[in-house]
Amino acid sequence: MNPTSKSSVQDKTVFSKILTDCENRIYTEEWKVSSKELEAGENWSVKKCRLAGGVSDGVDVLTVNNGKLSFDIVPTRGMGILKGQYEDVFLGWNAAIKNPIHPSYVNLEARGGLGWLSGFNEWIVRCGLASIGQPSKDTIIDNNGNEKEIVLTLHGRIANIPANFVQVNIGLEPPNIIEAKGVVYERSMFGPNLRLITSTITVPGSNWLTISDSIENLRSFPDEMQLLYHCNFGKPFLEKGASLLAPIRRVAPRDPVASKGIDLFDVFGAPESGFIEQVYYMELLSDANNYTKVMLQNRMGDKAVSIGFSVKELPCFTLWKNTAAEEDGYIMGLEPGTSFPNPKRFERERNRVLKLRPKNKYNARITLSFHIGKDKVQKASEEIRKIQGKTKPIVYKDPVKDFAPS
Amino acid sequence: MNPTSKSSVQDKTVFSKILTDCENRIYTEEWKVSSKELEAGENWSVKKCRLAGGVSDGVDVLTVNNGKLSFDIVPTRGMGILKGQYEDVFLGWNAAIKNPIHPSYVNLEARGGLGWLSGFNEWIVRCGLASIGQPSKDTIIDNNGNEKEIVLTLHGRIANIPANFVQVNIGLEPPNIIEAKGVVYERSMFGPNLRLITSTITVPGSNWLTISDSIENLRSFPDEMQLLYHCNFGKPFLEKGASLLAPIRRVAPRDPVASKGIDLFDVFGAPESGFIEQVYYMELLSDANNYTKVMLQNRMGDKAVSIGFSVKELPCFTLWKNTAAEEDGYIMGLEPGTSFPNPKRFERERNRVLKLRPKNKYNARITLSFHIGKDKVQKASEEIRKIQGKTKPIVYKDPVKDFAPS
Amino acid sequence: MNPTSKSSVQDKTVFSKILTDCENRIYTEEWKVSSKELEAGENWSVKKCRLAGGVSDGVDVLTVNNGKLSFDIVPTRGMGILKGQYEDVFLGWNAAIKNPIHPSYVNLEARGGLGWLSGFNEWIVRCGLASIGQPSKDTIIDNNGNEKEIVLTLHGRIANIPANFVQVNIGLEPPNIIEAKGVVYERSMFGPNLRLITSTITVPGSNWLTISDSIENLRSFPDEMQLLYHCNFGKPFLEKGASLLAPIRRVAPRDPVASKGIDLFDVFGAPESGFIEQVYYMELLSDANNYTKVMLQNRMGDKAVSIGFSVKELPCFTLWKNTAAEEDGYIMGLEPGTSFPNPKRFERERNRVLKLRPKNKYNARITLSFHIGKDKVQKASEEIRKIQGKTKPIVYKDPVKDFAPS
Repeated sequence: MNPTSKSSVQDKTVFSKILTDCENRIYTEEWKVSSKELEAGENWSVKKCRLAGGVSDGVDVLTVNNGKLSFDIVPTRGMGILKGQYEDVFLGWNAAIKNPIHPSYVNLEARGGLGWLSGFNEWIVRCGLASIGQPSKDTIIDNNGNEKEIVLTLHGRIANIPANFVQVNIGLEPPNIIEAKGVVYERSMFGPNLRLITSTITVPGSNWLTISDSIENLRSFPDEMQLLYHCNFGKPFLEKGASLLAPIRRVAPRDPVASKGIDLFDVFGAPESGFIEQVYYMELLSDANNYTKVMLQNRMGDKAVSIGFSVKELPCFTLWKNTAAEEDGYIMGLEPGTSFPNPKRFERERNRVLKLRPKNKYNARITLSFHIGKDKVQKASEEIRKIQGKTKPIVYKDPVKDFAPS
Repeated sequence: MNPTSKSSVQDKTVFSKILTDCENRIYTEEWKVSSKELEAGENWSVKKCRLAGGVSDGVDVLTVNNGKLSFDIVPTRGMGILKGQYEDVFLGWNAAIKNPIHPSYVNLEARGGLGWLSGFNEWIVRCGLASIGQPSKDTIIDNNGNEKEIVLTLHGRIANIPANFVQVNIGLEPPNIIEAKGVVYERSMFGPNLRLITSTITVPGSNWLTISDSIENLRSFPDEMQLLYHCNFGKPFLEKGASLLAPIRRVAPRDPVASKGIDLFDVFGAPESGFIEQVYYMELLSDANNYTKVMLQNRMGDKAVSIGFSVKELPCFTLWKNTAAEEDGYIMGLEPGTSFPNPKRFERERNRVLKLRPKNKYNARITLSFHIGKDKVQKASEEIRKIQGKTKPIVYKDPVKDFAPS
Repeated sequence: MNPTSKSSVQDKTVFSKILTDCENRIYTEEWKVSSKELEAGENWSVKKCRLAGGVSDGVDVLTVNNGKLSFDIVPTRGMGILKGQYEDVFLGWNAAIKNPIHPSYVNLEARGGLGWLSGFNEWIVRCGLASIGQPSKDTIIDNNGNEKEIVLTLHGRIANIPANFVQVNIGLEPPNIIEAKGVVYERSMFGPNLRLITSTITVPGSNWLTISDSIENLRSFPDEMQLLYHCNFGKPFLEKGASLLAPIRRVAPRDPVASKGIDLFDVFGAPESGFIEQVYYMELLSDANNYTKVMLQNRMGDKAVSIGFSVKELPCFTLWKNTAAEEDGYIMGLEPGTSFPNPKRFERERNRVLKLRPKNKYNARITLSFHIGKDKVQKASEEIRKIQGKTKPIVYKDPVKDFAPS
C-alpha cells in the first residue's frame, strides 16, 4: 500500500532522495543535487527550497533544471507547476503575483465558491479530483446516509492541498531521467478519498516534460473522479495572431459569448481590457494509439508549445481564451480533461464523470514540448495535421446540449 | 486570571516545563525529558516535536510514555489525542491518514459544514465548545443586537484551535504523576469566549490516563456550552463480536437506520462496505458518587478499554457504530457528553445545552483504562455489572422524541 | 511597477532594511536596529520578530520605539497595529487575547460572514479594501461575464492578508524619521486587484505617528474601493465620563439603539454588561486645507488621543461606542473612512463607494497624537474648537436615510 513501494530506491542505477514523507516524519527544508555531484549527465540540477514571508510563507518549491528546460514544482500547492523556462523563453503567464500563494490563505468557499481564483497563478494546475468546473450545487450522501446539498467550489481542492510525500529520482545512466514524484491526498471521512501519485519527468537537454498521474479511489466502493490539466500560457506564445492547432472532430462554443467568436475560435487577439472569456469544448481526433496533440503557436510560427495526450485518458478538450488586458491576465488555457468544466451534475448526466471502482487507479499523462524556431514548429504542426488527416472538423456555431448546459 | 497561576511551578516536588506560552512569547520546538534525567520513577518519557511538510506542517506533537502506556497529544489540534499504545496494543482507529492535519488545511465551513471530517483522525477528540453535533442552523445575536441565522459546523471549533499554552509537569515523588496541561481559547468578539484548561495525567507503569477539563465562560453574562468526548476505537478492540458493556437505564436509536440494529445495539459487526452509521443515545446508571463506566471489549473478552466518568458532568452517552469497511473507517465511538450530538436547537429545547454563568467553570473528567487479559477484562466488567445491579435497561425500538429529533 | 522603486535605498541619508520581499525571496526572521548602532538620534529602536506557537504561530511583529512612543505593527495581519504605549500609557484596548491571531486561523466566512471578529484585537486595523461594513449580499460579475450574488464578509479581507513586502527606513539626519513600510495585495483573478502601500512614520521622542496609505487599482478598468481606519481605545482614555471632541457639521444615530443614546452621543459610560453597541455617523467640519481632527479624552481631561486627517480623503466619520463589560470588550472606535460601514450596496447607491480608475491611487493619511497632561489636552482641544468655530452641529435624533439604511 506504500505509494513509494514501486520507487527505484534500491535500484543502483537510480539516485533517490525523499524530501517529504509525513508519515515517516521526513522533511528537508533546503536541498540540491546536480550533474556535477552525481557525475551523471550534464548541466542539470534539482533544488528544493522553502519560501518565507508574506503569502508564500511555508511554501515548498522544487526547481528542476534539465540544462535547457527548467520549471518550478510546488509541492505545497498539490504539485502544480508555477512557471518554467525553455532556453530563453518564459513558460507560463504573466500573473500579477509572481510568488506562489500558500493554501492557508486561499479560502475555496469565499466569493460564492470562487476562492480558488485568489491562489491561481500557475503555469500548469490540476483541477479536481472529486470535482472540476464552475461553482455549482451538488448532492452528497452524508454520514447519516441522508442526501445533503452542498456547493462544489471552483475547480476542486487538489491544487490547494500539500503533497504528503515528495521524492526526487535521478537516473544515473543515460538518458539520466530526472523525476519529481509526489503524493497528494484529497480526502475526508465520509467523503472522497482519492490518492494522486504524480510523476513529472524530463531528460537533460530535452525540450519536454511529462506529467504522469495515477489517481486511486481508496474507498471500499465506487466513487467519482474528475481531472483537468489547466495549462496556461501568456506571452510570448500568446499574442495577437497566435493560433491553436488541434486535430478536431467537433468543436462547440460554451455559451453565447463564445458563439460570437466561433469563426476565429482558433486565433487569438491582442490584449483587450474588459474581454470576457471565450471557452470552446472539443472532441479531438487521435492516431491509432489514441494519441493526440494540440499546439499553441505564436503569430510568426517560430515559437510553439504542444501538449500530447491520449484521448482515451483525457477525452474532453477545453480551450480557454482569456485575452484580457495584460494586467488582468492575458492568458489562454489548453485543458485536456476527463470531462468538460461544466457543473458536475451536468457532466454526470452525460456520463462524463468517472466512477472509479475501489482500489482502481485512473492513469493520465500529458507531455508538454517546446518548439523554438520555424523548422521545429513546422515539424510539430505536421504531426497534428497528420492526425487531422482528411477529416473535416465539425464547427457548431452555437452551444450544443451535448457539450454544455444551455 | 493567569491559567497557570495554580500550577505547581514553585512546588519543589514537581518538575515543570512550559513549552508554549503565546502571551509571554515562549515556544519550544523540540524537547524531551525522561525518568533517567530526573531520577524519578522508571521508564517514562515525555517528548515534544514539531512536524514539518505536507498537511502536518507546523503541527506540534507531545508524546507521553509512562513505560507501559504511551499517547500523542496534539496541542495544535486543541489538545486532542491522536493515538496511543498500551503494551503492544494500538489505541485508536485505523484512519487512512496517520499524520495529524494542521487546522489551516481544515475549512470547517466546507461541504455544507462537514469540513471537520477532513481533519478527523484522532483517537480522542473533543467536540464543542460552543456547539457539537451535525451541521445545523442556529440563531445568534450579532454586534448590532440583531438576530442572525448562522450555520453551526459539525462538532464545533475546539478540535481545530491550537493551544496557546502547553506545560508538562512531572511529580518528582511517587507516584510521579505525569501531567500534560494545555489552554485553548474558543472565542470571538461578540461571540462565545470559552477557555478550556485541560490536563491529561497518567502514572508510570499504569494502565490509565485521565483527562480533566475545565471550561470557563469568560464573558460577563451567561453563555452556552456543549462538550462531547469522541473516543474512537478500531481494531483490535473493535471486531466482529466485540461488545459494549454499559450500565443502562434507557437506550434509544437515533434514527430509523439505528432502529434496524436495535436488537444487537451492543454488539459489533465485521467491517462492511457501505455500512451506514448506527447511533444510540443512552441514559446511564451510576453509583452513589454519580460515577459510571462503559467498556468496549473484543470478541474473546481478553482485550478491553473502559471509560469512567460522572453522569453529573456528562449525563448523555452516545454510542457510535460505524463498522464500515476498514479503508472507510472501521470505527466505533464511546461518547460521553453534556448533551447528545443533535442539532443545537433541538438540544436547547430539551434543556441539554449548558448555560455557564460568567466566570463559572464547567468541569468534566474521563478516565480511560486498558485491560489486557481475560482476568482483567472480567474484573472491569464486574464493576459495570455492579452499577447496573438489578435495574433492567429500557430499550426503545424506535427513536424517542426526548432523545432525538424525529 | 516595483513598489519599492521610490524608496530611499540609494539615499545615503537614509538607512534601509528590507525585511520581507516575497518576489525576491527575502525574509528576515529576527532583526533589530537602534539609535546606538546607527549613531543617529537617541533612544529609538526598531525590532522584528516572528512569533511561534498557538494561534500566533508564524506571525511577524515589527516593534517601533521612538523613545517615548512605541507600537507593534503586524505585517502578517495586513500591517495593522496591535498595540502601543506612550510614556507609561497603554494604547489600544483590553482585548481578551493579547497575542495576534494568524490569519490562517481566521475564517472570514464563518458565522455568517462574521469570522473577522475571531481575529480582531488590534489597536488600529484597516477595514477594506474591496468592501467594509457588516456582512451583506452583493452582486459581482464572474469570469463568465455573469452576475453572481455573493456575501461580503465583515470589514473585508485586508486585515487578514500578510504583507508581501516590508521595509524599515531610518533617516540618518535629524529629525531621524523612522518609517515602516509595507505592501499588501488584496486580489483575486477576475476580482479586485488592489495594492496597498502603507507607510507608518514617527520621529524620535515625538508624541505622534502617521499612517500614509496609497491604494492602487491594478486592473485595467475602473474598480471599487472602500477604506476605514478602525482606531480602537479602551482604558485609560475610555472611561466613564470620557468624551469625544470633534468638529461636527451633522451627526446621526445608525439605528434605534443609537437613537436612544443620541443626547449623550459624545460622552462615554462605564463598562456595562450587555451593552449593545451605539454607532454614530458624522459629517465633520474642516479647516481651509480640508484638515480635521477628532479627539477622545478621559474624564479628567488629562489624557487624550487625537486623530487628524483630511475630510477630502476620509469624508465619513464613524463613532463606535461599545462600552460593554471589560471582559467583553470595553472599547470605542474613532473610524475615519471613505464611507460609512453600512452594507456596500447601500453605500454604492449614495455614491460613497469609491471607483478607482486603472493605475490610479487613492491616498489617505491619519495622524494619531497622544496628549498627557491637562495643558496638552487643552491645547489639542482648542484646535478642534477652532475648526468647529461658530457652526452649530446638526444632531439628528433618529436615523437618517442619507447616513444609514432604515
